[in-house]
Amino acid sequence: MKRLNGEAARRLDTAVDGLLESYAAVGGINHIDGCNLPSLARVVEVLKILDGLLFPGYYEREQLGRRNIRYVIGERCARLQEYLGEEVTKAFEQSLREGKGALVEVDDPAAEAERVVCELLEALPEIREMLYEDAQAALAGDPAARSIVEVLLAYPSIRALAVHRVAHFLHRRRVPLIPRMMSEYVHGQTGIDIHPGAKIGPGLFIDHGTGVVIGETAVLGRWCKLYQGVTLGALSVVKDGEATWDPPKRHPTLEDRVTVYSGATILGGATVIGEGSVIGGNVWLTRSVPPGTTVQIEPPFLRYRDGRSTQRPWDPADYQI
Amino acid sequence: MKRLNGEAARRLDTAVDGLLESYAAVGGINHIDGCNLPSLARVVEVLKILDGLLFPGYYEREQLGRRNIRYVIGERCARLQEYLGEEVTKAFEQSLREGKGALVEVDDPAAEAERVVCELLEALPEIREMLYEDAQAALAGDPAARSIVEVLLAYPSIRALAVHRVAHFLHRRRVPLIPRMMSEYVHGQTGIDIHPGAKIGPGLFIDHGTGVVIGETAVLGRWCKLYQGVTLGALSVVKDGEATWDPPKRHPTLEDRVTVYSGATILGGATVIGEGSVIGGNVWLTRSVPPGTTVQIEPPFLRYRDGRSTQRPWDPADYQI
Amino acid sequence: MKRLNGEAARRLDTAVDGLLESYAAVGGINHIDGCNLPSLARVVEVLKILDGLLFPGYYEREQLGRRNIRYVIGERCARLQEYLGEEVTKAFEQSLREGKGALVEVDDPAAEAERVVCELLEALPEIREMLYEDAQAALAGDPAARSIVEVLLAYPSIRALAVHRVAHFLHRRRVPLIPRMMSEYVHGQTGIDIHPGAKIGPGLFIDHGTGVVIGETAVLGRWCKLYQGVTLGALSVVKDGEATWDPPKRHPTLEDRVTVYSGATILGGATVIGEGSVIGGNVWLTRSVPPGTTVQIEPPFLRYRDGRSTQRPWDPADYQI
Repeated sequence: MKRLNGEAARRLDTAVDGLLESYAAVGGINHIDGCNLPSLARVVEVLKILDGLLFPGYYEREQLGRRNIRYVIGERCARLQEYLGEEVTKAFEQSLREGKGALVEVDDPAAEAERVVCELLEALPEIREMLYEDAQAALAGDPAARSIVEVLLAYPSIRALAVHRVAHFLHRRRVPLIPRMMSEYVHGQTGIDIHPGAKIGPGLFIDHGTGVVIGETAVLGRWCKLYQGVTLGALSVVKDGEATWDPPKRHPTLEDRVTVYSGATILGGATVIGEGSVIGGNVWLTRSVPPGTTVQIEPPFLRYRDGRSTQRPWDPADYQI
Repeated sequence: MKRLNGEAARRLDTAVDGLLESYAAVGGINHIDGCNLPSLARVVEVLKILDGLLFPGYYEREQLGRRNIRYVIGERCARLQEYLGEEVTKAFEQSLREGKGALVEVDDPAAEAERVVCELLEALPEIREMLYEDAQAALAGDPAARSIVEVLLAYPSIRALAVHRVAHFLHRRRVPLIPRMMSEYVHGQTGIDIHPGAKIGPGLFIDHGTGVVIGETAVLGRWCKLYQGVTLGALSVVKDGEATWDPPKRHPTLEDRVTVYSGATILGGATVIGEGSVIGGNVWLTRSVPPGTTVQIEPPFLRYRDGRSTQRPWDPADYQI
Repeated sequence: MKRLNGEAARRLDTAVDGLLESYAAVGGINHIDGCNLPSLARVVEVLKILDGLLFPGYYEREQLGRRNIRYVIGERCARLQEYLGEEVTKAFEQSLREGKGALVEVDDPAAEAERVVCELLEALPEIREMLYEDAQAALAGDPAARSIVEVLLAYPSIRALAVHRVAHFLHRRRVPLIPRMMSEYVHGQTGIDIHPGAKIGPGLFIDHGTGVVIGETAVLGRWCKLYQGVTLGALSVVKDGEATWDPPKRHPTLEDRVTVYSGATILGGATVIGEGSVIGGNVWLTRSVPPGTTVQIEPPFLRYRDGRSTQRPWDPADYQI
């Protein structure tokens, strides 16, 4: 480290003082003398362990075989129990400290955390069954997909859903903070933003995914398919009162086998898209549609420059979605 | 390392020669015998130190308390001064070397870098006040947000704004390269692309954020709110001449408390969205609107297949934004 | 590690058993006793080595000069040959094991991998020439871009294209898995999703980039320009049969110097956008347009609340793209 000149050293001292005063004056965005908060780095580590439990053999340095599998998996489960247990405990403690009684009623954070994490471990086989259908849906839904191996190694959809299904499990058990930390992490990785509260049936495929937003109270049936830039959102976002664990439904429902093409926006808690319906690209929809419906945007007039008059350049009938 | 067969070894040699010739022939995208360039890895490290100064206690391995806070913060400030000072020095040197007089007029890069970094350290309390309002805005603006702690641990908006407010500070002091390296890093993390030149008042909330683009000369007042996929862009992007530090205004102005819903595009340097206005989803706007205006897209006809004729399926009056 | 209580230890054991049963029952998403799969971590390492070969001096810890350049580059080439050779070998082996004869016909995976990797090394100078034009295009195309150095240090476009041009090279040589792992990695980093199959001429600039999707059989000429949220996609995505290396063309062609503004969607394998055409923001296009055409969306009526009647607020003639 180079030697500081006197001026720089003096200003450094003053700056430190200024910051310390700022921490005293502007609370809320500092956290000093508080209890420990959940660590994002640890939560990310937990997600990596979960990858190794949900899809063993796919993201390994060393090969997995019948000979070592029991030890490897046992060690991963034990580590998950420990790490996630610690973070969930911190999340319960923080929530208690905030005194948000509406959000948690936990007497013994550590014991409750252990209970929840055990339940998650026991639920992993069921979560794997859903993810198996998700992977099959990606293979079936993308003409460019060559194999399940490719889906697991190179599709953001399966990454986002693996994290969501775990985060949703924890959210249903009213674990604060951790589920959203998980979902925001994978949002950063994939561009797919699914709130942990969303209920999603097996066999979902989200192609490309960037810009997809699925809100807290959205419900998706089995074997739905979404493309990039799809929003399943709320009509009106005036916040009245604090967030609760059982919020009113403000995001739409997609029944089984609904397809929504890129850039479409579906809003509202009472909006139900009937089974097997297809919502075209860029559609903006705030009302329910019955099962088996195809909804397309009326193609806007396009203006061509270059001497030709305005015309509708294509007949929507020839647009096959 | 396995043994190379003769053929592979020979081709390796030839390939190295080919590359070296390519570096001599195709300049510009190599940088050999030049001065050191700013290191992206170091800039990312600097951003992590800044997180620890702006939001102490939130992203820690060890707990922060009154006992250790002064030492921890002092050490962070000193490290920031050193690391960022080095990178800013390199950026000034590179700029001088390019001889872009219009961009920098710096006599002593190291001294100027030290001056700028000291100023940044001294400005952190003020930046924290703006970020405090940004965090409050997220809590107030998202019905699913449960606490300030959740906002700081799991919202991309606050990440993007923390980086932007620092990058903007450096940009205003005409530091080359580093501000854009910072903004592009957080763009990669969050999908939110804010040019360091943009002037943004306190209390901004960017919900979900993926695909948001805010241009170099955009101006946003206090307590604005943007959703995913919003573009605040330029009407025409014909580049005439070199980029300057005082470019003509080509991106819009949003006055205080403007809300822009997902997918909307607002273009043009003369476009001013008046105070309290609400711009609906997917609106494409290139003209100013007066204060208090709500602008919605005329709902396009939707076509339903399934035997029913084309119809306008919903009355826009019932769309409440 | 803290001591487990008896209950937690018992449940841990049961959970491990449950998972092991699940692996036996739900195949496909586990990979046990299989051959080694390509490692994503290694593929990322390979991409970093490639950065150091394609843009030497830009992302270095130590300075590069004439004195050391030959050794540094030689070492990088050798490491690339080894690491990428190993991963490509695994990819060929996995593909053979799946018995997808249509996809690969490789007798000796390791020898074939070595051949392909040597070819890639020899092709790097040519790839650099294309990337040089890509960097020039970014500098010319963005009014905010200050220098080639800034483009290389802070633009996602050049990152995405460097990876794409390498992935496309491997894809054309029918390497399974690796090209898609590469493209998905950079998609996660930049929000730009380019299938390795897409053919892209030199001088492409993708501004901002988040949400851009370019499909497997898309073709782009020289010096095209795309903005954020542009989709070059397929009209209909009913998958019939397995993916092949020579799929029917289902994505559009852009001739030289085509510009596509943000949020536009161009679909269909027979859709050709003629040379020099400009496709406006949010346009949804499924038919060819002749060279030199400007296509704009007919501006939708906007509804202003606040006492004024519905009106078309701007004359599209004043929108200059």
